[in-house]
Amino acid sequence: MSNQNIYDNQIFFDGYKKLRSNPSAANDIVEKPALFSLSPNLQNKSILDIGCGYGENCVEFIKMGASSVTGLDISVKMLEVAENENTSPNIKYINKSMTDLNEIAEKYDVIFSSLAVHYIEDFDKLIKDVYNLLNQGGYFIFSQEHPLTTALLTQNYWTCNEENERIHYNLTTYALEGERKVTWIVDGVIKYHRTMSSIINSLSNAGFIINKMLEPIPSKEIMNQYPSYKRYIHKPDFLLIKAKK
Amino acid sequence: MSNQNIYDNQIFFDGYKKLRSNPSAANDIVEKPALFSLSPNLQNKSILDIGCGYGENCVEFIKMGASSVTGLDISVKMLEVAENENTSPNIKYINKSMTDLNEIAEKYDVIFSSLAVHYIEDFDKLIKDVYNLLNQGGYFIFSQEHPLTTALLTQNYWTCNEENERIHYNLTTYALEGERKVTWIVDGVIKYHRTMSSIINSLSNAGFIINKMLEPIPSKEIMNQYPSYKRYIHKPDFLLIKAKK
Repeated sequence: MSNQNIYDNQIFFDGYKKLRSNPSAANDIVEKPALFSLSPNLQNKSILDIGCGYGENCVEFIKMGASSVTGLDISVKMLEVAENENTSPNIKYINKSMTDLNEIAEKYDVIFSSLAVHYIEDFDKLIKDVYNLLNQGGYFIFSQEHPLTTALLTQNYWTCNEENERIHYNLTTYALEGERKVTWIVDGVIKYHRTMSSIINSLSNAGFIINKMLEPIPSKEIMNQYPSYKRYIHKPDFLLIKAKK
Repeated sequence: MSNQNIYDNQIFFDGYKKLRSNPSAANDIVEKPALFSLSPNLQNKSILDIGCGYGENCVEFIKMGASSVTGLDISVKMLEVAENENTSPNIKYINKSMTDLNEIAEKYDVIFSSLAVHYIEDFDKLIKDVYNLLNQGGYFIFSQEHPLTTALLTQNYWTCNEENERIHYNLTTYALEGERKVTWIVDGVIKYHRTMSSIINSLSNAGFIINKMLEPIPSKEIMNQYPSYKRYIHKPDFLLIKAKK
């Protein structure tokens, strides 16, 4: 099921909205700063945001000087929030699955995607489609769940000590690529595990030059403020890549 | 200690020789085929092999058509074996640390390095030196211990069940780069842990284009023949990268 639209499930949507409103969410503290740190100068650039969700990043790209932003998402409910909360004359939202990027006729200078590509079964197709949508010299900048997270078939992630501190990450089935059914807000959310080498080779085979990779961890201050973030010492949660056409 | 020469320690040398003579050694079954799978056509190419050890790969490069091979190793004892067992009119062995690559005046078409770079503290310097030693369009192809192996500060690698089967890899301190003191044949062997992103960024910053990455695992037949190799399902032991200048 490569065009899964879990975000239009009401229970999921409500749970997700609550999760994202938490000011200490890993997305805000770890993933988002890393994603923006990879951005080139966006002045007068045309941007595509794949899996834009609420459109929060789309508004940021406009603030950073982008001349136009297209936000694409499979979920009607997510785009309703985007149209209400994150509008601009230069932002256009499109309801479309990222499996159908080949239907888009425009070209873009920079394509972003935040925490969406691990929902896609056919990564090679996605990467080729993104490559075709970029102007020459353009960048694809994406984040995804780290392969060390997606690797596991069960959610038996950590071994803890008696004080309930995480002492090691229980890594299993890293080499076994494919579907993972996980419980995240609701049961049966489907993700796809790919190894680091598989991700790198898809990008390289499509013609991309790997410019930079990040496996971000929070600052010491954040770890002291939210001790559960000390887990990042052992295992990153996110993988980010900046690739050039 | 970035130019550690553990291979000239007699106890280590004897232990290593015994280990490598095991026909089911992971080097021979997993790492070496992966390394050679990354090789471009070597016909009439000049080759440098960094950390050549016994020179076994040097002889292979000549068989594959290379016009000249330079094998470089820090260990006099290793090169004595190479000079006795793996000679050819077109192979030259040089006793030199890979920290001193900048002293070499020649240029090469392809530079190989098998399981050596994790002994080097200053990876950025190594990669820049390798880049400078390559002809334009040349390749650097190397293998190293996988960052998931080098990550750990202790050698408490696996959690096993009562039948002594490995059920998960105990991943710790992946984000903590730097020195690792391990027991391998002798005590106090020093390696350096770097994350995947750190390795990729050193290559990219030096000007390399990442062409291919491998995290090889043995075939099902090998896993059935040697059940301990089933551990590769959970965690790769080797990382290989082919990068182009």
